[in-house]
Amino acid sequence: METGASAFHVPEWMIQFADQKQEFNKRPTKIGRRSLSRSISQSSTDSYSSAASYTDSSDDETSPRDKQQKNSKGNSDFCVKNIKQAEFGRREIEIAEQEMPALMALRKRAQGEKPLAGAKIVGCTHITAQTAVLMETLGALGAQCRWAACNIYSTLNEVAAALAESGFPVFAWKGESEDDFWWCIDRCVNVEGWQPNMILDDGGDLTHWIYKKYPNMFKKIKGIVEESVTGVHRLYQLSKAGKLCVPAMNVNDSVTKQKFDNLYCCRESILDGLKRTTDMMFGGKQVVVCGYGEVGKGCCAALKAMGSIVYVTEIDPICALQACMDGFRLVKLNEVIRQVDIVITCTGNKNVVTREHLDRMKNSCIVCNMGHSNTEIDVASLRTPELTWERVRSQVDHVIWPDGKRIVLLAEGRLLNLSCSTVPTFVLSITATTQALALIELYNAPEGRYKQDVYLLPKKMDEYVASLHLPTFDAHLTELTDEQAKYLGLNKNGPFKPNYYRY
Amino acid sequence: METGASAFHVPEWMIQFADQKQEFNKRPTKIGRRSLSRSISQSSTDSYSSAASYTDSSDDETSPRDKQQKNSKGNSDFCVKNIKQAEFGRREIEIAEQEMPALMALRKRAQGEKPLAGAKIVGCTHITAQTAVLMETLGALGAQCRWAACNIYSTLNEVAAALAESGFPVFAWKGESEDDFWWCIDRCVNVEGWQPNMILDDGGDLTHWIYKKYPNMFKKIKGIVEESVTGVHRLYQLSKAGKLCVPAMNVNDSVTKQKFDNLYCCRESILDGLKRTTDMMFGGKQVVVCGYGEVGKGCCAALKAMGSIVYVTEIDPICALQACMDGFRLVKLNEVIRQVDIVITCTGNKNVVTREHLDRMKNSCIVCNMGHSNTEIDVASLRTPELTWERVRSQVDHVIWPDGKRIVLLAEGRLLNLSCSTVPTFVLSITATTQALALIELYNAPEGRYKQDVYLLPKKMDEYVASLHLPTFDAHLTELTDEQAKYLGLNKNGPFKPNYYRY
Amino acid sequence: METGASAFHVPEWMIQFADQKQEFNKRPTKIGRRSLSRSISQSSTDSYSSAASYTDSSDDETSPRDKQQKNSKGNSDFCVKNIKQAEFGRREIEIAEQEMPALMALRKRAQGEKPLAGAKIVGCTHITAQTAVLMETLGALGAQCRWAACNIYSTLNEVAAALAESGFPVFAWKGESEDDFWWCIDRCVNVEGWQPNMILDDGGDLTHWIYKKYPNMFKKIKGIVEESVTGVHRLYQLSKAGKLCVPAMNVNDSVTKQKFDNLYCCRESILDGLKRTTDMMFGGKQVVVCGYGEVGKGCCAALKAMGSIVYVTEIDPICALQACMDGFRLVKLNEVIRQVDIVITCTGNKNVVTREHLDRMKNSCIVCNMGHSNTEIDVASLRTPELTWERVRSQVDHVIWPDGKRIVLLAEGRLLNLSCSTVPTFVLSITATTQALALIELYNAPEGRYKQDVYLLPKKMDEYVASLHLPTFDAHLTELTDEQAKYLGLNKNGPFKPNYYRY
Amino acid sequence: METGASAFHVPEWMIQFADQKQEFNKRPTKIGRRSLSRSISQSSTDSYSSAASYTDSSDDETSPRDKQQKNSKGNSDFCVKNIKQAEFGRREIEIAEQEMPALMALRKRAQGEKPLAGAKIVGCTHITAQTAVLMETLGALGAQCRWAACNIYSTLNEVAAALAESGFPVFAWKGESEDDFWWCIDRCVNVEGWQPNMILDDGGDLTHWIYKKYPNMFKKIKGIVEESVTGVHRLYQLSKAGKLCVPAMNVNDSVTKQKFDNLYCCRESILDGLKRTTDMMFGGKQVVVCGYGEVGKGCCAALKAMGSIVYVTEIDPICALQACMDGFRLVKLNEVIRQVDIVITCTGNKNVVTREHLDRMKNSCIVCNMGHSNTEIDVASLRTPELTWERVRSQVDHVIWPDGKRIVLLAEGRLLNLSCSTVPTFVLSITATTQALALIELYNAPEGRYKQDVYLLPKKMDEYVASLHLPTFDAHLTELTDEQAKYLGLNKNGPFKPNYYRY
Repeated sequence: METGASAFHVPEWMIQFADQKQEFNKRPTKIGRRSLSRSISQSSTDSYSSAASYTDSSDDETSPRDKQQKNSKGNSDFCVKNIKQAEFGRREIEIAEQEMPALMALRKRAQGEKPLAGAKIVGCTHITAQTAVLMETLGALGAQCRWAACNIYSTLNEVAAALAESGFPVFAWKGESEDDFWWCIDRCVNVEGWQPNMILDDGGDLTHWIYKKYPNMFKKIKGIVEESVTGVHRLYQLSKAGKLCVPAMNVNDSVTKQKFDNLYCCRESILDGLKRTTDMMFGGKQVVVCGYGEVGKGCCAALKAMGSIVYVTEIDPICALQACMDGFRLVKLNEVIRQVDIVITCTGNKNVVTREHLDRMKNSCIVCNMGHSNTEIDVASLRTPELTWERVRSQVDHVIWPDGKRIVLLAEGRLLNLSCSTVPTFVLSITATTQALALIELYNAPEGRYKQDVYLLPKKMDEYVASLHLPTFDAHLTELTDEQAKYLGLNKNGPFKPNYYRY
Repeated sequence: METGASAFHVPEWMIQFADQKQEFNKRPTKIGRRSLSRSISQSSTDSYSSAASYTDSSDDETSPRDKQQKNSKGNSDFCVKNIKQAEFGRREIEIAEQEMPALMALRKRAQGEKPLAGAKIVGCTHITAQTAVLMETLGALGAQCRWAACNIYSTLNEVAAALAESGFPVFAWKGESEDDFWWCIDRCVNVEGWQPNMILDDGGDLTHWIYKKYPNMFKKIKGIVEESVTGVHRLYQLSKAGKLCVPAMNVNDSVTKQKFDNLYCCRESILDGLKRTTDMMFGGKQVVVCGYGEVGKGCCAALKAMGSIVYVTEIDPICALQACMDGFRLVKLNEVIRQVDIVITCTGNKNVVTREHLDRMKNSCIVCNMGHSNTEIDVASLRTPELTWERVRSQVDHVIWPDGKRIVLLAEGRLLNLSCSTVPTFVLSITATTQALALIELYNAPEGRYKQDVYLLPKKMDEYVASLHLPTFDAHLTELTDEQAKYLGLNKNGPFKPNYYRY
Repeated sequence: METGASAFHVPEWMIQFADQKQEFNKRPTKIGRRSLSRSISQSSTDSYSSAASYTDSSDDETSPRDKQQKNSKGNSDFCVKNIKQAEFGRREIEIAEQEMPALMALRKRAQGEKPLAGAKIVGCTHITAQTAVLMETLGALGAQCRWAACNIYSTLNEVAAALAESGFPVFAWKGESEDDFWWCIDRCVNVEGWQPNMILDDGGDLTHWIYKKYPNMFKKIKGIVEESVTGVHRLYQLSKAGKLCVPAMNVNDSVTKQKFDNLYCCRESILDGLKRTTDMMFGGKQVVVCGYGEVGKGCCAALKAMGSIVYVTEIDPICALQACMDGFRLVKLNEVIRQVDIVITCTGNKNVVTREHLDRMKNSCIVCNMGHSNTEIDVASLRTPELTWERVRSQVDHVIWPDGKRIVLLAEGRLLNLSCSTVPTFVLSITATTQALALIELYNAPEGRYKQDVYLLPKKMDEYVASLHLPTFDAHLTELTDEQAKYLGLNKNGPFKPNYYRY
Repeated sequence: METGASAFHVPEWMIQFADQKQEFNKRPTKIGRRSLSRSISQSSTDSYSSAASYTDSSDDETSPRDKQQKNSKGNSDFCVKNIKQAEFGRREIEIAEQEMPALMALRKRAQGEKPLAGAKIVGCTHITAQTAVLMETLGALGAQCRWAACNIYSTLNEVAAALAESGFPVFAWKGESEDDFWWCIDRCVNVEGWQPNMILDDGGDLTHWIYKKYPNMFKKIKGIVEESVTGVHRLYQLSKAGKLCVPAMNVNDSVTKQKFDNLYCCRESILDGLKRTTDMMFGGKQVVVCGYGEVGKGCCAALKAMGSIVYVTEIDPICALQACMDGFRLVKLNEVIRQVDIVITCTGNKNVVTREHLDRMKNSCIVCNMGHSNTEIDVASLRTPELTWERVRSQVDHVIWPDGKRIVLLAEGRLLNLSCSTVPTFVLSITATTQALALIELYNAPEGRYKQDVYLLPKKMDEYVASLHLPTFDAHLTELTDEQAKYLGLNKNGPFKPNYYRY
């Protein structure tokens, strides 16, 4: 990788995390969220507000593993909640197709050549209508796929049914146990007559499982495509330890994905999440945003635009200077904690908001987290006898001090945008297109282009993902003339920037 | 360098440029700007509006090279316009010191140790009050310096005099001929009993000169610090050709410098430059900005905030997508050229605005350039007999078509912000601090840390530059706790980000 | 009134509307919304998404009019859904009290004097927790009150129960029939031993009822306070016709209420309403906003801030020029209808979006209304056989053309912010405070200050409402010195502006 | 007037001011600005940075009153600096014509009818190219005019010459003495065979003169059009005292003029004025803006957009609440005076910034005034022996405290935008068009429409001014259908809003 694995910090929690992994057959007798969160990756157990089953009757208590189901063609190589929900799921997939023009364009271009012909992809992601469009695109490009869910709550049963009905071996349902989770993954990997040669992972659990159980399988695997912060960190760790035995593509840090997942998406979802949970007015409110990375930048810009007065805390002097130049007072949290109406964490750090801070907040202060883990607010410190918790609506708790002061805690400190707002299809389209292109690149790369290391998506592919999404905005790109391309020393088709370019 | 020299494009104009370099002793009989611009670097002949001599009487036509001058201590190792202007220059330097707290802080910290003790720095930069603060800081840090100007117009004679009076061997005056230019540089390099061991360059002319004339000198040189786009490109070219024989630090692409020189500075200077030249009202005006890099982003944000309707053109689909998400219509120039009130180029490319575009613009359309060269607008194409040029005020020409249509051309297509607005001291402070730290790093680096290649400023130093400027904003940085640093796998003092982080 | 009733336009729909009023005892056998909307005021039948009963079991089908209920003190002078829900309602009222500091401040100031002692107020408003805080404040200020609902859907039954439990004669429940609606109003007006002397109305139905049924009652009435656009228009109409027989206070047009109900509130609710219904991304979307009054200004500012490209249509050249200066392209709807992603109406006009426009919109275009009536989009024109309606979620319909094109229609063209988002308590606090002060002013005004006309809230009271809400923002007002007040010719306590001041 | 003269506050300084008026024949022996500012209206002596003579040679010391000049047609009924400068002035007028399309449109429409046929207008305004376009438009509309300058410094001699050359009796030059000032006015009013029937005034000096000297003249005068704050205040004062003997039109408070002179213009000129004087960077700066009227709103919006952190002070709770909702901390000046980098006054009040405040400001704090008089900053308090004044460039003083602290005072506390930036022609076009329409209205109004009172420009004319400026922005207004006009109760051609509408 160009940017140097050595430059990357291996955080402590990554290391601890890996040690705590357990195997699936130790079925826990009583599965609370608390116990689960130690044994499978955090992201695999985060709750999803928007991922409710559309047609959920919930009456059926039988485990899908105990059911005998066939699709209309008699195929039974899948395990979903209820194959009869396929029709509803198909309609959802069709609607999603309309909003994912980039993948549909890939399908069209693939009518001649099949860049993934021969590819055997095992995948582990959220199972949603958008993922289904990705999977069926991979199929149209020539690949065979087997798929499990990367999160025990996020599967849309109807979509899983629709995929199964179409002949995709899908193993996923909403509300899996931890044991189910690993069982489903195993069913995608370890099946007679199937030798996967590509991995598409989201969180690293699938990769982890193959490392643990079927390390020999890597001999035939051409590469791993990993989407999540967590999974990417694990890969860098493996690479640093010299244990990564195939090339891996870090699509999480591609430019388009980063900007959309963080800056552009959070700019909108911070407002959405706060409104849906609290109906508050933003104008005139004093807000402190902890962390001025892409997520913090998005939150600050949106709140400032709505008339809030925003303070920023930072540990990094460069980001701090950006906050200053963008018009935000840079403070330590203690300086403003008594006066602010809202506290938002966007750091990726732990214990950014401590019990001491919470004690000093004023009545009705809202506290929420937009960062990538649920450790930023020390919620555990609020689980003490003298404080009363009152659930006032879904995802909203009032924590009440003995003197009557109430703190409004959103989503129990978990990700606000994941829990209390929805992710626009457009953002998911960018991610899915990036994944598809990364698979194509790794699968078709000539011997030697990629070694046993972690790579960023090639600049040119990143640019290609972007270009596939421009028609949505009726945006017209300018082309270089031959003369201009020569003058700039560029190929007319890109890449247009050096790797260190910051956008 | 981490980001790979191989990833860098070598533009054609860089190559041509190098070929055209001539030597100084071929004194041209008649020096027009046109001829000059081929023989020395472009940046060395750009005009500077803000660089007028404060006390300029201009009566004295004697070349400084023909004068005998001594400072009050009897020293004559310098060549400036008029040593008697020293007092006025000293006052300017003192005012600048008040606004460059970072360098003053460095001086204070250097009272104990002298990180540049033994350093012999030869420098070639603009000679302004801010540079003077840098030079005197380098002196305070233990260095000996000899200095020339990197631009034949930009020297402030009073400041040069003040430096000479203080004992700095300075060779620079406003209005040097090309021959003078190289003579001054030579006087800094080639003097009895002086063997420079560090180079501080802005534009690459000094480095070029040593390569041509005194290549052996590089044996004792520990490194080059280069600030300009042009100079950095030359260094990458040398590196690619395997001819770079010492480590070089590209400070142009450090984060703080980039953001301030481009995004933050242009956000303000586009408004300033347009107002000072045209007194126009921004509200409701239709503007097309060509290029959505940092400069384009700054221009667009400012004009949008003032109520202009802004269109963007781009060749790079990623930047194009950013423009869309930031609320700008992405168009080809032809689509809007008939309707816009203002055309601004920020591409670094050539012939972005062609005669054909100019022919189609509406009456009173304003055309200007914020990019890094004067080729973006094809101004030469307007020098045809059927068009009348009318100079309506300094830096403002009306080009008049036979039918009476007027185009308002600013600064003849050269950089608007350089020609028609001023650069805030704060921005210069960031650049100067970056240069000082780069010199310290290269001078003190242990053997082997840097090879014969071009390096970006180490992240930690970039962060340090930022931290030295935070007090200006009364900004309070948060410190990591031990526990948090461990959790994140970071050193409490930084660096806080991986090298590929985009800010 | 200072601003001249004669300057006010009497719209046609106001006149028609009044003619269609019917009496309550003609009980319709089958009450559809369509029939209802002709017989009682439009606002009285608008649907409310946020007005669901908190504890709704809905099992009880008995009409409250047929029930015998008593509160804990044996009082039965009320008619609510279920007096047993009082405790829950009381808790809601207590929460609302915390966010309505202005009314609580009024209560505190009233501990000494009772400015409404002797006042007998009959009210007809939405029955919510916020209204309850208003009613109990009026009580604390010395008034006796009887209250009905101004909308057949909006009553929160629990709140009504809590008020009844506290001894307030409340006649209101969620889901009243038209007959119930007028019966409830009548029970507030016409009861043995009760002669109201003040009217607080929202929509004009109460005022209308007394005019029709008990015109003699006006002899003892000191004044009417009216909050809604519709009710205020009716009052101006009465005034113009010489039929207004008591002073009336138009609180709808007070500065604070206008800015909060329109500009500030819509700036937030347009984003909220669009997100909750469609989960769309705003960045890069092309939007046309019809109308650039306060509502349009708020919508445009919010969408521009989120990165949308916004076009504006206007009929008024002054507002049009404002749109230009604020950075929006001013177009006719036809010019952009084919390209936009969203159409938002904010005009108060009818048929702004016609079937012809709808026919020309592109696939997936979202259409919604933020104006004050449901006539802006010609929804009726979409009820034709060739178009298919598909309800995709609550408040969201897809209207599908024969060629498959879908238009996304929100809230069936009714008010988006009323139907699909919530109104912050802070806004309701401003309205309620304004109503309370208007009642105090009219009740205590010396003979002759107000004639039989429609008045705006006195400037000083408007300023007082604002000042009561400043502590929420920890805002510190500056006081004039004696010298400054003299210099400006102002009283130190205001009013600070001439009546024509535009803010 | 609809809004009630009685509602208007008569400030003390208006009253004092009128008392101090003196007559012109008391020629002062030595005219300093200090003495002048007591005897003629403040606005008549304000300095103008942009009003320098274009071709100023300044050699000619002869008073124009002592010269014998004729234009090329032999006419000598004028008094200007130098009739030979006419050609240059004509060119300036032609350029201005290109940017004043509204007046040119009026001329075109007047080719058939002459709405000002028979009008004899005496005018007293700034004499600039834009005023010349107004005067020549009035001529084209049928009027005869005589003109003097309303400010002793602001006349552009070349323009005055061009008008004289064209046959306009103009009496004005740059650098008039006070005596000259009144002499010029007198020469416009009191001349054989001339009986003016309309007054166009800017500041009220002309009106005052006629009141004092030729009160009988008002018998034939149909009305006064007054543009300035000062002049309008005088008129309201006359009206209140029952001494106004003709109708007067307050064009200062027309919507378009207010928004452009204040909100839109100041939004741009605050940035321009600060940059031109200080070259400061706005990003990250802490700024306090005193006053949140239209001017303050414009300043705050601009600075916030450039990344400054803005605090606001206010005395009016409504404006204060607006500041809160727009995202500004509302403070008392004392709370932030120690920390801010810039202090801007926009109040119209006196001694808003006192010596005590100035004593507490930090080093390098910039202080300037955007309000309508020079009393907002107590500059006089800085003229004490212990403080040193240092003029660092035009319009910029450093005031230095004994401990070395420097305050940067701009334009000596006079209007920053008048002194240090320029007014765009577009703004002047709006004002001039408003004046022309007001003259037409008053001149043609049927007997009885206007009484001896002060009137705002009729809404419809205000709308007409706006509509004449829309083509500049290629803005397309929507027209009401007959059905819509009927529905809204509006005439299709406006007026579109009730008089109290706030925009």
